[in-house]
Parts: sequence; C-alpha cells; structure tokens
Amino acid sequence: MEKLLYGVAYYDEYMPYERLDQDIEMMKAAGINVVRIAESTWGTHEPQNGVFDFSSVDRVLDAMHKAGISVIVGTPTYAVPTWMVKEHPDVLAVTSQGAGRYGARQIMDITNPKFLFYAERIIRKLIDRVKDHPAVIGYQTDNETKHYHTAGPNVQHLFVKWMREKFKTVEQMNKQFGLDYWSNRINAWEDFPSTIGTINGSLGSEFAKFQRSLVTDFLGWQAAIVNEYKREGQFVTQNFDFEWRGYSHGIQPDVDHFAASKAFDIAGVDIYHPSQDELTGIEISFGGDVTRSLKANNYLVVETQAQAFPHWVPYPGQLRLQAFSHLASGANMVAYWHWHSIHNSFETYWKGLLSHDFAANPVYNEAITIGRDFAKLSPQLVNLQKTNKVAVLVSNESLTAMEWFKLPGASKNYNDVVRLMYDELYKLNVGCDFVNPASDNYENYSLLIVPALYCASDSLLERLNAYVKNGGHIVYSFKCGFTDENVQARTVSQPGIISEACGISYSMFVEPKHVALKGDPFQVGQEHNQVQTWMELITPTTAEVLAYYDHPHWGQYAAITHNRFGDGTATYIGCMTSSAVMMKVLKHVLKEIDLWGIDQEITFPLITKSGINSIGKTIRYYFNYSESTSSMQYPHNGGMELFSKQEVVKGQQLVLDPWGMKIIEEN
Amino acid sequence: MEKLLYGVAYYDEYMPYERLDQDIEMMKAAGINVVRIAESTWGTHEPQNGVFDFSSVDRVLDAMHKAGISVIVGTPTYAVPTWMVKEHPDVLAVTSQGAGRYGARQIMDITNPKFLFYAERIIRKLIDRVKDHPAVIGYQTDNETKHYHTAGPNVQHLFVKWMREKFKTVEQMNKQFGLDYWSNRINAWEDFPSTIGTINGSLGSEFAKFQRSLVTDFLGWQAAIVNEYKREGQFVTQNFDFEWRGYSHGIQPDVDHFAASKAFDIAGVDIYHPSQDELTGIEISFGGDVTRSLKANNYLVVETQAQAFPHWVPYPGQLRLQAFSHLASGANMVAYWHWHSIHNSFETYWKGLLSHDFAANPVYNEAITIGRDFAKLSPQLVNLQKTNKVAVLVSNESLTAMEWFKLPGASKNYNDVVRLMYDELYKLNVGCDFVNPASDNYENYSLLIVPALYCASDSLLERLNAYVKNGGHIVYSFKCGFTDENVQARTVSQPGIISEACGISYSMFVEPKHVALKGDPFQVGQEHNQVQTWMELITPTTAEVLAYYDHPHWGQYAAITHNRFGDGTATYIGCMTSSAVMMKVLKHVLKEIDLWGIDQEITFPLITKSGINSIGKTIRYYFNYSESTSSMQYPHNGGMELFSKQEVVKGQQLVLDPWGMKIIEEN
Amino acid sequence: MEKLLYGVAYYDEYMPYERLDQDIEMMKAAGINVVRIAESTWGTHEPQNGVFDFSSVDRVLDAMHKAGISVIVGTPTYAVPTWMVKEHPDVLAVTSQGAGRYGARQIMDITNPKFLFYAERIIRKLIDRVKDHPAVIGYQTDNETKHYHTAGPNVQHLFVKWMREKFKTVEQMNKQFGLDYWSNRINAWEDFPSTIGTINGSLGSEFAKFQRSLVTDFLGWQAAIVNEYKREGQFVTQNFDFEWRGYSHGIQPDVDHFAASKAFDIAGVDIYHPSQDELTGIEISFGGDVTRSLKANNYLVVETQAQAFPHWVPYPGQLRLQAFSHLASGANMVAYWHWHSIHNSFETYWKGLLSHDFAANPVYNEAITIGRDFAKLSPQLVNLQKTNKVAVLVSNESLTAMEWFKLPGASKNYNDVVRLMYDELYKLNVGCDFVNPASDNYENYSLLIVPALYCASDSLLERLNAYVKNGGHIVYSFKCGFTDENVQARTVSQPGIISEACGISYSMFVEPKHVALKGDPFQVGQEHNQVQTWMELITPTTAEVLAYYDHPHWGQYAAITHNRFGDGTATYIGCMTSSAVMMKVLKHVLKEIDLWGIDQEITFPLITKSGINSIGKTIRYYFNYSESTSSMQYPHNGGMELFSKQEVVKGQQLVLDPWGMKIIEEN
Repeated sequence: MEKLLYGVAYYDEYMPYERLDQDIEMMKAAGINVVRIAESTWGTHEPQNGVFDFSSVDRVLDAMHKAGISVIVGTPTYAVPTWMVKEHPDVLAVTSQGAGRYGARQIMDITNPKFLFYAERIIRKLIDRVKDHPAVIGYQTDNETKHYHTAGPNVQHLFVKWMREKFKTVEQMNKQFGLDYWSNRINAWEDFPSTIGTINGSLGSEFAKFQRSLVTDFLGWQAAIVNEYKREGQFVTQNFDFEWRGYSHGIQPDVDHFAASKAFDIAGVDIYHPSQDELTGIEISFGGDVTRSLKANNYLVVETQAQAFPHWVPYPGQLRLQAFSHLASGANMVAYWHWHSIHNSFETYWKGLLSHDFAANPVYNEAITIGRDFAKLSPQLVNLQKTNKVAVLVSNESLTAMEWFKLPGASKNYNDVVRLMYDELYKLNVGCDFVNPASDNYENYSLLIVPALYCASDSLLERLNAYVKNGGHIVYSFKCGFTDENVQARTVSQPGIISEACGISYSMFVEPKHVALKGDPFQVGQEHNQVQTWMELITPTTAEVLAYYDHPHWGQYAAITHNRFGDGTATYIGCMTSSAVMMKVLKHVLKEIDLWGIDQEITFPLITKSGINSIGKTIRYYFNYSESTSSMQYPHNGGMELFSKQEVVKGQQLVLDPWGMKIIEEN
Repeated sequence: MEKLLYGVAYYDEYMPYERLDQDIEMMKAAGINVVRIAESTWGTHEPQNGVFDFSSVDRVLDAMHKAGISVIVGTPTYAVPTWMVKEHPDVLAVTSQGAGRYGARQIMDITNPKFLFYAERIIRKLIDRVKDHPAVIGYQTDNETKHYHTAGPNVQHLFVKWMREKFKTVEQMNKQFGLDYWSNRINAWEDFPSTIGTINGSLGSEFAKFQRSLVTDFLGWQAAIVNEYKREGQFVTQNFDFEWRGYSHGIQPDVDHFAASKAFDIAGVDIYHPSQDELTGIEISFGGDVTRSLKANNYLVVETQAQAFPHWVPYPGQLRLQAFSHLASGANMVAYWHWHSIHNSFETYWKGLLSHDFAANPVYNEAITIGRDFAKLSPQLVNLQKTNKVAVLVSNESLTAMEWFKLPGASKNYNDVVRLMYDELYKLNVGCDFVNPASDNYENYSLLIVPALYCASDSLLERLNAYVKNGGHIVYSFKCGFTDENVQARTVSQPGIISEACGISYSMFVEPKHVALKGDPFQVGQEHNQVQTWMELITPTTAEVLAYYDHPHWGQYAAITHNRFGDGTATYIGCMTSSAVMMKVLKHVLKEIDLWGIDQEITFPLITKSGINSIGKTIRYYFNYSESTSSMQYPHNGGMELFSKQEVVKGQQLVLDPWGMKIIEEN
Repeated sequence: MEKLLYGVAYYDEYMPYERLDQDIEMMKAAGINVVRIAESTWGTHEPQNGVFDFSSVDRVLDAMHKAGISVIVGTPTYAVPTWMVKEHPDVLAVTSQGAGRYGARQIMDITNPKFLFYAERIIRKLIDRVKDHPAVIGYQTDNETKHYHTAGPNVQHLFVKWMREKFKTVEQMNKQFGLDYWSNRINAWEDFPSTIGTINGSLGSEFAKFQRSLVTDFLGWQAAIVNEYKREGQFVTQNFDFEWRGYSHGIQPDVDHFAASKAFDIAGVDIYHPSQDELTGIEISFGGDVTRSLKANNYLVVETQAQAFPHWVPYPGQLRLQAFSHLASGANMVAYWHWHSIHNSFETYWKGLLSHDFAANPVYNEAITIGRDFAKLSPQLVNLQKTNKVAVLVSNESLTAMEWFKLPGASKNYNDVVRLMYDELYKLNVGCDFVNPASDNYENYSLLIVPALYCASDSLLERLNAYVKNGGHIVYSFKCGFTDENVQARTVSQPGIISEACGISYSMFVEPKHVALKGDPFQVGQEHNQVQTWMELITPTTAEVLAYYDHPHWGQYAAITHNRFGDGTATYIGCMTSSAVMMKVLKHVLKEIDLWGIDQEITFPLITKSGINSIGKTIRYYFNYSESTSSMQYPHNGGMELFSKQEVVKGQQLVLDPWGMKIIEEN
C-alpha cells in the first residue's frame, strides 16, 4: 500500500436528496481518501431480473476520481433483491428454524445454483464495468459472509457426500462419532438423517465445519471471478467479522478465517467495540492481531464505528485514539461504517460520521484532525511490520465443540477463554499473532498461548509436544486436548497426548463453588483468587505445582502446573481463573522464559505497540486508555514524537492526556 | 343517558345450574340495572352451521325486563365456533407465527370473507330477534376488537393495493421508505414481498397502520349492520381496550381508537388496574380521559374489575372508590366483568362480583352500597360535562414506530413516555383530554402535552408551531419530531420542524450512564435527579435552558429548555427524567402560563375531579387514594356533600377516610 | 429377590475399543453383580429394516454369565433407528411444536402402528433370543417411557373416541367442561378441534390424562409381549422417572405411575439428586417411597448417579451414604447410570463410575467398598419390609390441573406443595408411603398428608371425609378440593366437600404481599413466619384456628385450622407457609394423634429409616447428611452394628462421621 487509507462506506443510493458534491467536499475536508460502495444495493443495480442500472456507481466513481478519492467496489451479493425471492423463494436458506423469510440481508442459501447464477451475473456485469475506472483501487467480495445456517435438504445432500469422502465407510463414521448411542447409527448412506435435529456433538460439529467450508468455497468462487477482471495494482479483499456480542468479541464461529482468507490479496475486517467509559482498545488489538495474522501482513479495517449507537458516541479524543490504535496493530486503512446516518430501516440508529442532518458535528470535527494526521504521517506509519514472539493458537473446531459441550452454566464459551488469556497479554503490552491448527509457523514463536483447545487431532497435539521438546513454551488453559478431531473424548488420562509435555494427569473435573487457590499463591486478594466455572482435579506427574485448590475434599489436587519438557516448558491452567490470576501466571511464564521486557513494565491503561516502518525505523505508539492524564518514563532509544515533531530522549517523562497518545519514531 | 348505569357482564350460558331468578334477585339487591350479554357465545347461539338457538338470549331478556334491568346485547363475533374452523380452517388469521390454532378467542382473520359471511348472518339473526325487546337499550359490536396480527397472503395482497394507493409509484415508495437499503427495493408491485420478514421500520409501521385500518373497517361494517336494526333510543357501542401490561396501561397499539370510534353512538371501554396497595386511580383516569375524548362525551365503562385476580381483590372501600372515580372522569356506566366467577377454562381465576359459590361476599356487599348510591345520586352525577384546558397528543404512528426503533434497553416504550407525563398531570389534579394527529380541536386547549411524537408529518408539526405562535403552549418530551409520517428520519437538525418553536437544535444523542441534571435544578434530590435511557445533546438557539446535563464530556448540552415563540411557549424535555423532575417541569410550565389553580395545591394521594352536571351545577369529587385518613381544606364555593347530605362551606376541613371520598355539589 | 443387586448400565456397543474382559474384571472387583443392557441401541441390533445383529448382546451375556454377573435386558424401543425414520417420517410424534425431528431419543408417536410393528418385531426377536440365557434375571421394557407430547391428528382422533366414551353426549361434555365459554362448544363430535390450541383447562387436563393412558397402554402392551417369553424366576420391570428439574424432583406429570406399574412384576426407577454440599437424601427417600408404594413392595433403583455432572461428583463417603440410603427406603438394587463415561454425543459429561479413561478413580474406589458391603450384608438388608402409619396422597390430575391454573407468579407448582410437605416429614424421620386417588388402602394409615388435591371427584372427597369420621387424620394444604374431576370449580363454598371435615369455609383468596402469621404462633421467627404465593381467606365454622393472617384488612381470616370430625381430625393449611411453619404444624398434628415417637426426636441432618428384614429382625439405619461429625443417643433396643459387627445397647452414644452412617440389626 502506498499510503494510509482513511475511508467511509458511502451509499449514494440511500441519499434522501442529491448530495454527492457536498458529501465529497466534506470528505475532502476530513481527509477521507477512500470510499467503499455498492456492496449493499443489488436491488438498485439490478432492479429487475436481467435489467441493470449502475448509474449510481458510475457517477460516484467519476465524482470521487475527480476529487482524488479512491474507491473500493463491493460485489452486491449479500442482500438479494425482491424480484429474485419472489421468482425463486428457494434461494432463501432453510435452517433449523424452517424456511427463510425475505427482509433481512444474509438470508440466502449460498449453495443454491439459482442464487449463484444471479450472483455471478451481477458480479461480472459490475466488475467488468468498473475495472478500468481510475478511481477503483480494489474490490470487496460480498460482505461479512457467513453460511447463514443453511441446512436444507440440498445442503444435507452435500453433507452426506462430505461425510462419505471423509470416512469412506459408515462403520468408520459410526465408530468415530459414537453413533450407536441412542440408536443413532447410520448403517446405509441413504439413511442419513438431516443434521438439524441431531444431538450428537461430533456430527453437529462436523456439520458446522462443513458449513464453514461452504463459506470458504463461496468466497473463493467470488474472488476467482473478480480476479478475472481486476487490473494490476487493484486488490481483492473480504470484510471478515467476529463473534458478535453487540460488538466484535471473539473468533468467528461460522467462518474459518485462515482458510477463507487464502483467496484474497489482502485481509479486511470490521471491528466494533465498546466505547465511552468502556473503551479499552482490546477489540481493536484483538481484531487487528487476528486479521494481520491471516496473511501475515497489513490489513484493512473496512468498517469501524464513528458515532454508532447512543451508548458508543465517542468522548472527545476517543475517535483519534481508536484510529491510531488500528494503525498500531498494522492496519493500513481505517474506514467508518458509514459516512452518513441512514434515514430509514434497520440501522437508522447505527450512526455514521455525519448525523441525519449531514452537518458537521463534534465527531466529524475530530475526524478532520485524524484525516490531517493520517495524510501528514502516512510515510512514517503505513506498512508497519511487526515481529512477535508470542502467538495465540485458536481453533474453530474447538469453539464449535464447546458450543455442543458447554461449560457449566453456559454463560462462558470458548471465546471467553480466548479473551481471558488474550486480554491479559494485551494489558501486559505483549505483542502477539494468531495461529490456527493448520498454520505451519509455530516455530516462529517462543511462546504459544493455547486457550481451550478442546478438539484437536493426535497429530496436532504431538506437534505441540514436539514444539515444547524443541524449546518452545506453551501456556495451556483447561479443557485442552480433551477430544480428538471428531470430538470424541480421549480414552486415556486427560489432558491426553499433551499430558506428556505438561507432566500432569486428571480424570475428574468439577464445578467450583466457593473454591479458591490455596494460600493465594499469586497474591491477588480474596476476590480475585476465586476459581470459577470449571476445575480439573489434576495430579502432577513431573510438573511443578503453581497452585492447589483450597477445598475440604479436593485440596490435594493441583490447579495450575508448570513443567519442563525437553528444552521447553508447558504451563497448564486447570481452571477458570480471574483476570488477575491469569495475568500473574502469564507474567511468571514470561519472566521465566525471558520474554519479559521493558514494555511489560508499562501496563494498561497505558498501552504501547510498535513495529518497523517502511524505511526501517521503529515506530512506538503510546496510548492512554483512561479518563485521567498519565505519565511514564520513555524507556527506549531516543526519537521524534510525530504529532508534536519534538525530540524525545530515553528516560524522558511522557505525559499522555486522557484518551491521548504519542507516536515516537526512533532515530 | 337518563341515569347512571351499574352493570355486569352476564353469562347465562356458562351457569353450572339454573340460577337466573336467584341471580336477578341478587342483582336487584345490589342495584345492578344493566347487564351485557351474548358477546362471547356464538357457539351456543349457532351450535351448527345455520342452526340458531337464541333461547338463552330470549329468556335472559325476558327475565331482566321483568326485573327492570336493561340489557346491552353484544354481537358474538370475537370468538368463533368449532364447526366453522373445522369446515374452514382458513378463517383463522395467519400471522408471523404461522397458521392459527383453534382455542382462544380473537384468532380469526377479520378480512376473511368466510368469516365475514358467517359473522354477518349471526349478527342479523341476533339483532333482528332482540331489537324490539323492551329490555334492550343498546348493542356492543364484537369485543375488544383488534387485528390479531393477521398477515397472511390475502392480507398482504390488500396491503400492496394500499401501498399503490398511497404512493402511486414504486419509485415514491422506495424513496420514502428507503428501500434501497439492504437491497429491499421493490421495482414492480408484483415483486412486493410479504411484510412478515421485513426489517424496514417504515414498511413495518405502514403495515401496522394498515392493520389498524382493518379494525376500523371491520367495526364500521359491524356497526352499519347493527344500525339497520336498532330502534330509536338504542345505542351502538364498542368495548375498546388499552395496551395491556397485566392491566390497562397505555394507548392501544393495534387500534386507532379515534378513527374506529366514529362508527359508534357512544364509546365504551374496559379498564383494569392494579389494586390493593397499588391502587392509585391513574388508569381509571387515563382510560376515562382517553375514552371521553374519542367522542367528546360521556362514555361507558363496559368492563372493569370486581374481585378479579388474587392480587387485585379490593380492600374494603376500594370498590366504591373505583366506581365513583369512573363517574368523576365522565363515565355514565360502570359495569363489572363479570357477575359470577366462571367454573371452567381460561378465566376461572378472573373472578366476578360473586365467587364460584354464588354467595354474598365482602366485595358483593360493597357493591350493594354502590348500587344504592348510584341510584340515589344519579340525577346529580349522570352526564357530567368536563371542559379541560390541557390535552395530551397521542399518536398510534409514533407508538408503532418506536416499537421498530426502540429506546435503548428496550424496557421502556412509547406508552412509558405517555404515562410519565400523564401520571404527573393526574397527581397534580390537572384535568385533561386526549387528542390525536387527526383531531381538529387543538385550539380548544391552552396547553398541549406531547409525549414522544416520534413520527409526524410536516403539516402536523407546522400546525403545532402555529399553535404555539398563536399563543398555545406545548410541553414536548424527547424524541418528538424525529421522523416524518413515513418514519424517515428528518434530514435537518433535530427536533426538525419544531426546532423553530422550541428554539433548540441537536444532532447527537446518547444513552445516559450515571448522568444527572446539573446542580439539581428542580431540587428533587440525588436519586430523582438522574437521567435515564435517553438523552439528546441539545444546543439552545433562542431557548432558555431549564437544566443542563451533569457529565464530564456533555455538560455543555441542555437537557430541558423553555422557549417563548410568538404568543406561546414550547418546553422541550430532551431526556427521560424521573417522575419527580417531570412533575416539577410541568408545575413550572403550569405556573408560568397561569394554569396553576387552587386544585393543583392538592396533590396525590388526594385526587379531585370536577365537571358540570345536567342541571348546570358543579360537581366536585374528592378521593383519598391511600391507606391513611387525610384531611384538606375545601377551597371552592360551598355546597352539599352528596353522600352525607351535609352542607360544606369554603375553607371547611374535609376529612377523607382511607380509600374514602366525598362528592360536593356546589350551590 | 434373593440378594441385594449392585449394578451398572453397560453399553458394549459404545466402547471405543475392545474392553469386555477388562470391564468385567473391574466390575467384579467392585462387587457389581448385575448389568442392564440393550435398551438404548436398537440401531445397532437392527442395523437395517429386518436385519438383526444381536452379537453384542450375545457376547455380553456369555461373558457376564461366565463372571457370575446377572443381566437385565431392556427392550430397545425408546430410541428409534435412522432407517425407520427415513422410511416412515410419521413415526415421529407430532406435538404442539409441530412435526418431530430425528436425533434425540423418545421422540416417537407411541400410538403409531408403524412404530408399534417394528417395536414388536425387535422385542420378540430379542427376548426370544435371550430368554433362556442363564445370565438373564429380568427385563426392562423401554426406558423412562412417557408420551412425548404426541398430539397429532391420529392421536386427536383417538381422543375424540375417549371423550365420547367418557361423556356419551356432547351436551354432557360441554356442560362439564364449560365449553360455552369463548364459543368453544362442540356440538357434533366431528367438530372436535385439535386440543393443541385449547385454552380450556378441563379439556387440556383431560387430554393430558388421555396421554398418560397411552403410556399405560403402551407399557402394558410391551410387558404382555415380554411376558410371553419370560422364564420362571425372571422379572419384568420398567424404569420410571420423576418430574425433572435437573434432578428427580417430584411426581411425574406425564405418567400415572400407579396405573402403569400394574403391568410389571417389580417397580424400577431412576433417582438423580443434588450432591456435594446439597446432598440431603430427600430425593432418595421421596423416589424410594413413591416407587415402593406402587406395588407395596421392594423396588429396583435402575439408575442413579455415579460421578455424573461436574456439580454432582460426590465427596468422599457420599456414594456409600447414597447407596445405603436407597436400601433403607426398600430398594433391592442400586445401579449406576452408567459403567463408563461415554466418549461422544449428548451425555459425554454425564459421567459413569469410570471416567473416559476407564481407570480406577476415587468414585470407583468407593464403589468397591459398597459392593463389598452389599455382598457381606445382603442377608440382613435385602427385602426390607416397611409398615408406615402415614401416607401422602398424590394426584396426577391435580398436578396437571395446576399447570393449567398456575399459582400466582408461576414459579411454584403442584410438586412444590408436595415437596413442602414431604420434605418436613423426611426431616422429622416420619416414614411414609404414597397413595393416589385410585388406591384402596387409605384405612391402613393413621394420617394422610394431602397436598394441593386441586382436582378431585365428589366420591374421593366424600371418602376422605368418611376416613376422618372413622378416626383417620388428614393434613390438607391450600387448594384442596377446589375443582371436581373435570377441573370444574365447585359451585359451593370452598373447600367444597371437605369443608365438612375441616370445619371451615372460604370464597375469597388473595396473593400475599408482606403477610405473616399473626403473632408468630409457631415461634419460627420473622423470616420464616411469612406467607408466600397464596392465601385463602378462611372462616372457621367448627374448626379451631391455629393461625390467623397478620394483615390490616384480612386479619380476621384464619390461615391454618384444625378440626375434630367424628373420630378423627382434619388440619387445613390455607396458605403457602415456610418449611419451618410446615414442620411445626406437622409436629403439632403428629403429637396430637400420638404419632410422635422416639425417632422424631432425631432430626435432619440425622436421618433414620427402619424396617423388618427377611428373618424378621428390625434393621435401623442412621445417616449423617452433613459435613460435620454428629452424635446421638441410640434410643432403641440393643443390637449389632452391621459394618463394625459391634454390639450397640440402648442409650449408647452413636458417633456418625461426616456423610457417615451406621446400621443396627436389633437383637
């Protein structure tokens, strides 16, 4: 990428009156240099079957180009037109809830050939039309694509073939999935029941995996079509998104981001997060780290919040803090969803940079300063390269399996474990990447963080044992290694294969009630010393015990252990701890394996991120994620603070305003 | 009406054994002078298709007439017989939940011609049979009629025609409803999808309006049929009801009461309310004020509670207090649902005046005293006329739109805003009427209270501006004026058109967390000074600021403003306040515009209502809605206390028993 | 039964690898002498329509026999194979939720002749094959059979015939069920609507009763088939279960255990209960007392928990305490569900005696001690006979009716009233049996406890009056006698017919808010003196008042009364009391009628149970249901403590370990 992109989603089609020139003028004033268009408006571009109208695309491209604003064109396939559904109601996905109903986006069966026929036609028409336009720098296929739980008879039919391909014989399938249970055996392929009613978690998890493969296939198919047209210098991206809890919370259950991103030139993402007093920067960092890891490169924040919801309207300074936080994680683009607040329909209260009145407002005014600084600092900040020694191993398969086999109480899921571990790394300013079971680069890292790897093949676990033996370090949470890749509980002592590296075993686990760690070993105080939700009754074999349970009957069992194995170490956290204990355990490990550095002495709400810029200099970001002014001693080599253009020397006091920041380019 | 009616719903058909004579004897003893019959028992009156049996009607009419008790005959169409549904399952409404199931009442498609055919036939048979019976004083069409969410293909078909009539072209519709969004455009009428799945709030709100029009049409059709038969002196009424929260809480979402009531001679209503320690009289007053306003005349309380539920059984005195409270709001009839407690089915625990044992009981015994006093005081109390200077402007359209665009948290809706304002008027003893957007009488009032007029046409808002300019006064709540009649957010500064009269503007709004009004300007104390749920960040243009927000970042914005505009004033309350603040703001306004009178010095739990009786004298009711004896100085001209027949002079101390009352006819 | 059975459910079919010999070796070590097999695995035994494979049955029978372990063979009909549902989707029950989906067990229409055809075929094939095997001691038909809410058109068709049989004429039905209400009359049998949508509680309750009769019929049909094959000495049982609240809580709503058990030789049951700090033994006692009462004989605990869920893993000692508690209630078998923890599917986390690793573990190790003691003490402990003076009268019909007419708040149901009364009897160490309306043995008891007998025929209530008159004693809770057998509220003063024996009447009832018993008559302290959920406003006629309500308006009404009637007494508790008040009322009655004995001086957490063993000696169990060591004076004749083989004399101090116990055989 040549420069930082600062953008908005722009919907000329939604405008209540002619505003294009005015909008562009206000965009220019705010330093907006890219817009994303067209991904939501198939019904406008193809008002009737085979009748096309790209006039809004044409005029926006022309006007943007004239203004020097680049355009990313989206294929408009994630929301289908009324005529299509009226002609072919079966393009809607049949799910466990029954037949679909027209209205929302993302309701179609992405395997349906009628849908695919129309989708291909509009993609080819649109991309062919815009590909040579000088404003166009890239394409987005579809939007936040998922499988929409499509599970109708045709999808079930494909799934039987998937299963036959995987297992070859029903005998193998019955055995691996335990289908004798409750008379669920499938003794002939044609007896295969719809998975919709299944109570077999192996089968259900496999179906979810199959559904994720449909997303990978669909996106690959779209990208291949767009690739036929794209000019040199143009890119194709996708807008991935995360587990949604009213904001971007964790690993996306319905897409294998690692697999699906292969088809694209660059990874794109949307990141939405709590704001106001709840703004921490964690989701920005988490989403950025995941997305950067997909292609081991810079990425685009295709959507993030401007004003958004009433509970998200940013305090003064927060929009700036957020924008530069994205850059600090390796983003090359920060784009808002959306330019203007929409006047009708579902997202009327998901406000854009402009309110419904299109006038300047405090948030827009703050964007002006961001656009100015992006432009000014682009040479120093674009294409930030990061090399991390720590990676988090995440697994769609484990996530799904833990939906089938929920933690007691069902209020915490896989992503809560991921976030319990990730958040403390963030607060300790430990930069990290993400890997998945298919990644081949574990050896690039000194430390792997492995949350709840509940579902994993023998070979993956053996590979992790070998990683430790060869000098790597791992911190496992509870629930790791429990089942194989078919979500079959292992028939040996737990945690199964990794017992060897961890030097522990257990066969019983309970739900803690009023259980703490014995003697408050991490000195976190009574409240934070409690164990929640899950505890494994661990017996160390070779491991050192970092914490025992404090319980009248289970006090002899270990809660947290640490084991030297070969040239590395494996730490095992056998229970859901507090954040405070998690931080202390990570700190203990980081110190022991010499990953504790000068940046770890700074802790949240002061956040630092760094990387190497395109001219080979180290860029250091310092963010103050709090309402109070904070100061710290600058601990690195001297350099230039980029906003103020003032020199900073090692040991100098840096004063950070509330929700403020500094960026230092080392000399 | 010649006299006060004191009545019950009477179901001879439900009686476990022959009781007619005994029941009538007990009714006579209690002063019951009217019964309502027949509205629930189609299956009894037409046991088979085309076979009619009105014997229970005949015998009840004869017996009642003999006893001097009048009868209101209901058309029995709100609950359909088993044979009809077995023959024609499609008479049941298809809703977003799918096809209907037989069992409950109010489950039919009120547009279905099969249903209409049978309904017309039974109406004509029944009314023709009873119309000349001397006991019959009036008719009720159907019961608590609503649209029952009918939304099947035939209803959708009608709706497309409604839309074409409204918009003429799909282009207009697409534009006003913002259907480009998420590819929802309808480019040909035949592409129109079922509204069941829509996520477009404009479309959804319009469909709700259309559904309400079906109710108006259906009731008008029934009333027209009954009108063909009714004799001189007989009336036709309908039993309207309210938003139900386990009691009659607010404006009815599914019926436009103003439109639907036009077809009737007199408005009827059911009013159910909390009781025991929670008895306040508010719902009696609210329901009465709404219903009296429909036809600007006295009304019938067709149903209200006797013993009702275990949590409603009235304390001694409460049944009397309630009965006279209805009269004080302008009711000419108070009738209980129902005479006897039912021995089977859904409402077994919704008890009547009699328990299941049909014996006298404390509640029945109290009714005896009411019947006696109704009879005795009827000449003074019947046909009370009220002239209020304050009206509340309510809007079905705003209610619906705010269901589509809910307040944050979704626990408060339009009616909560209505009640927040109405309840404080009630507690201040400010008599008020209700108007709606179609009303032509705003100028009759000095003060309009306008809660959450979220959805309003330009012309309505301009009319409100003119009303202020010409000397009227308005108190607006937050959310007023935000969208036009198509639920399209306005493209100008908010609150849009009324900004002019209010002298304010805003473009941002947030969800308050720990926000109060700065400096407790209304001196309500910390707890009551909090802002909840919604706050608009208001900048005054010409308005005086009554309250600012207390917030580190939003403290410069106004919360409550007051503006002189032309000869009137407009007060704007930009946030959800406590009841205490609302009362203080209303008090402030009432004082300023000289509506603060002697009655406002009395406040809840002492309630006063007044009006002019048919001989032109002022009647003043004083109610003590509390468990404690209270006293007050009587502040008006001397007169006669009607229960005791004792003279009362101005300034005299009135002592009100717990749950007690006095009625004074001024000399 | 010749000896105590100690067993497990065993699923060779689920084994991840060949383990039969190892399993049997571990079973032998643990004293397991019986296994239950085959009830869950139809799909394994009949992999294709008409193709049978009983090899796993054969080999398990042979191996068990060789090891001296007996086998109970289950008919595998509660979970249907995939091929059947693929061929005949209509074997799945249609319920109020619509058509069924394949996946879970217990989803079929137990009246469907296709299902019945296949079920009969597999039963005959299986039982014929195993009947002569020497390992087989008995059979279980199906498993936890219920009606699965089957309510499709064919079931409705049968129900119409049931109704015609019951009522003969529609007139009678309409009258008894109050179908005039809301036009629900059925004036011709062919007009009968599906009950799925009914709002008539009489009709709904009757349909539930009909559904329970389907279960009785289905089980009777299965038992009759098995009886054709069974050899002398073999038994046929069923595994009944209870209202499930995450554990076995109360009377089963969907089965009439008294009726359904008639077809069986011996009653079986599963009992699951809270554990760890919440272990009280109440469910073990409740489930045991119910099941023992079904056939007035010893019973089998076909399933109970071993490790089970993370929140149930037993503390040391608890598994033993539980096992002997079952025996103390009259069980002759204690069997765990299940031997090994399952590696796939729904119940992976419902752990067996062994964990997924099949290794010994603390729970298994404790089982070894139980097996050893069962074997050693079997001659003394098997076939314990109990003679109780107290019985609890339970009624499926009342349970169902109270689901239709819920208590205010809907958080408490019929079983909560049953348990409120039962639990206090348990804590007072009052042994009791259960009877139902069809039982003919009321006169065997001195005291009947009658919780919420809401739905009861005249003849039942008259029989209860006669029981009191003839010297019996009854403690009634509120809600007794309110409706007849058709759930029609009685038309006389409440509590209807039993008013005579109780010497009270009421016609009003309210929901208590801040209501206590006046003057704390039972000295339980303020918190426990509160009245909850329901209060009847009782006027005594001849009764003595034990407690009045403390309420400003209802203080004149009685809450709890006691009446001498003929030679007996009837106590009536007109409100939901605390446990503490319930205990005091029961204590009062027990003392008055001379049922207060030496065992009642011991109270929970010390529990004692007793009976006569097969050699005519009295066996006394003493259990300590607490975490603390407790001691007590042994109050009975001297004897031998069976674990220690030490003599115990009257008055000697018995010291009971935490979760510990002693068993004394009187000399």
